[in-house]
Amino acid sequence: MTSLKICGNLADRLFSRGFGVRDKKCLKLSWEEALYLCEKGILKCDFEEILDEASSHLADFDIRYLVYRDLKNRGYVLRVKEDHFQGKKSYSMSFYPLSDMDYFDPDEILNKNPPLILSIVDGDGDITYYMVEIHEPRGEYFNFPTSLNAKYYGRRYFVFEDLEQLEKSTYGRREGRFGHLSLLEARYLGERGLIHPVESSGEEIYKVYRDLRERGLIVKSGFKYGTHFRVYERSMEEHSRYLVHVIFGKEELQKVSRAVRVAHGVRKELLLAYIKEREIKYFRVSWIRP
Amino acid sequence: MTSLKICGNLADRLFSRGFGVRDKKCLKLSWEEALYLCEKGILKCDFEEILDEASSHLADFDIRYLVYRDLKNRGYVLRVKEDHFQGKKSYSMSFYPLSDMDYFDPDEILNKNPPLILSIVDGDGDITYYMVEIHEPRGEYFNFPTSLNAKYYGRRYFVFEDLEQLEKSTYGRREGRFGHLSLLEARYLGERGLIHPVESSGEEIYKVYRDLRERGLIVKSGFKYGTHFRVYERSMEEHSRYLVHVIFGKEELQKVSRAVRVAHGVRKELLLAYIKEREIKYFRVSWIRP
Repeated sequence: MTSLKICGNLADRLFSRGFGVRDKKCLKLSWEEALYLCEKGILKCDFEEILDEASSHLADFDIRYLVYRDLKNRGYVLRVKEDHFQGKKSYSMSFYPLSDMDYFDPDEILNKNPPLILSIVDGDGDITYYMVEIHEPRGEYFNFPTSLNAKYYGRRYFVFEDLEQLEKSTYGRREGRFGHLSLLEARYLGERGLIHPVESSGEEIYKVYRDLRERGLIVKSGFKYGTHFRVYERSMEEHSRYLVHVIFGKEELQKVSRAVRVAHGVRKELLLAYIKEREIKYFRVSWIRP
Repeated sequence: MTSLKICGNLADRLFSRGFGVRDKKCLKLSWEEALYLCEKGILKCDFEEILDEASSHLADFDIRYLVYRDLKNRGYVLRVKEDHFQGKKSYSMSFYPLSDMDYFDPDEILNKNPPLILSIVDGDGDITYYMVEIHEPRGEYFNFPTSLNAKYYGRRYFVFEDLEQLEKSTYGRREGRFGHLSLLEARYLGERGLIHPVESSGEEIYKVYRDLRERGLIVKSGFKYGTHFRVYERSMEEHSRYLVHVIFGKEELQKVSRAVRVAHGVRKELLLAYIKEREIKYFRVSWIRP
């Protein structure tokens, strides 16, 4: 990571401002630090030459540098690590520079030990920051309707009796003289013995549905928001708190960005649900201005 | 499509209210019409029996019926066609019933001759209506920067001279003593001979970028909105009018829904761009309440 070694007075001054790593009386600077100090005129240098040299050593140095200078300009003290910047201002946080062509890789993120901040340079060179945390959603709704006589019709289950039961529950929907349920709802109630025949539905999506219900959450369709679920903590009379989207592995950052934008626009929290070795991990992803 | 034939007085009354197809003195009803009239108590019948019978004849009848009755309840006069309902209220429109597990299929939609309305039943049984039209975006910006000396660094191009040129153009971005451009911008300017070496970028995405630029539109990153582009008609001092997302074939309706939601939330128009036999088709998709 080292690019440049400087010694003497300037080394002391820069060290006290959080730059570099001490090497006896001298200071070793990373490429990002060197280019930044060059850009600011604190080091005498040829900007293009350092950029060329750094890029020959570090893939994606262009992206790294744009994130580094943006955070510096926001007043952060930064330590340059192999694949991220350790930033300190009001709080300490790891910033991972990425381009908008990269992916949200849940396994990699778990290895990096969240919370962390994805720092994404888009086509315009603008930088978007997404805070990623592991989250454990919990609710307080553990009621079930009584046994329902539901019948399968291709895409949905219909119910013709006990409609008051259905109406009071958070499952399905009543339409006057009949009611209907989604495949996920029917399967879940079927597992509880509350409905008879059970048709299959997407395996992963169902597992997340069940897990959320078992955490006491009320789980309804997220279709209008373009996610799998919208989730209530206690009752459907309050606003739903979460949008939950199931991911099956690496996901394009652009798609994550779209989901974050929707959630932000409707003041809900976005959770990406990922099944890892039978355990479901929930990543809360939120748009921040660092 | 016919399910039931009724004759006599009731046939006349129902025909005058827009139901059925005349068969001499009688009236042939579609399954949707029969079940709806049954639900409303206008026909004496067993609701469940008709539903069963209809479902045995028509795949997705559950979905079709939920859309049909919703539109009827909104006051539409509907003609039942093979794969859609021809609806008439304030204006005449084709409604295509779908489930949220279905796809947005650009080839199929082109065959159906838009404008049309996708009528999508989600997991809750709620119905979302998306108007789909072919649209020809046009702008008024046809300026270029003069020749730029831009250099490639992995993910972006950097510029060190003529920064005022860059700043005044709608290409790239200036950051004090340097500027930078995206791969798409550099490639486009490269094709015009304004930049020298040109690195590749996604083929389809680039074609749409170029087409939009050639229509006089200003094309910037849509990353913050989770789409490929945001597009201005005249100048970046106004708000951008469009979000443009490139699709490569069938796209999950859920993903389209997410993009529509974002666009709606920021009052922009969503265009799905699809390359069909070298021609680029732009589908404008908007959320409506019919």
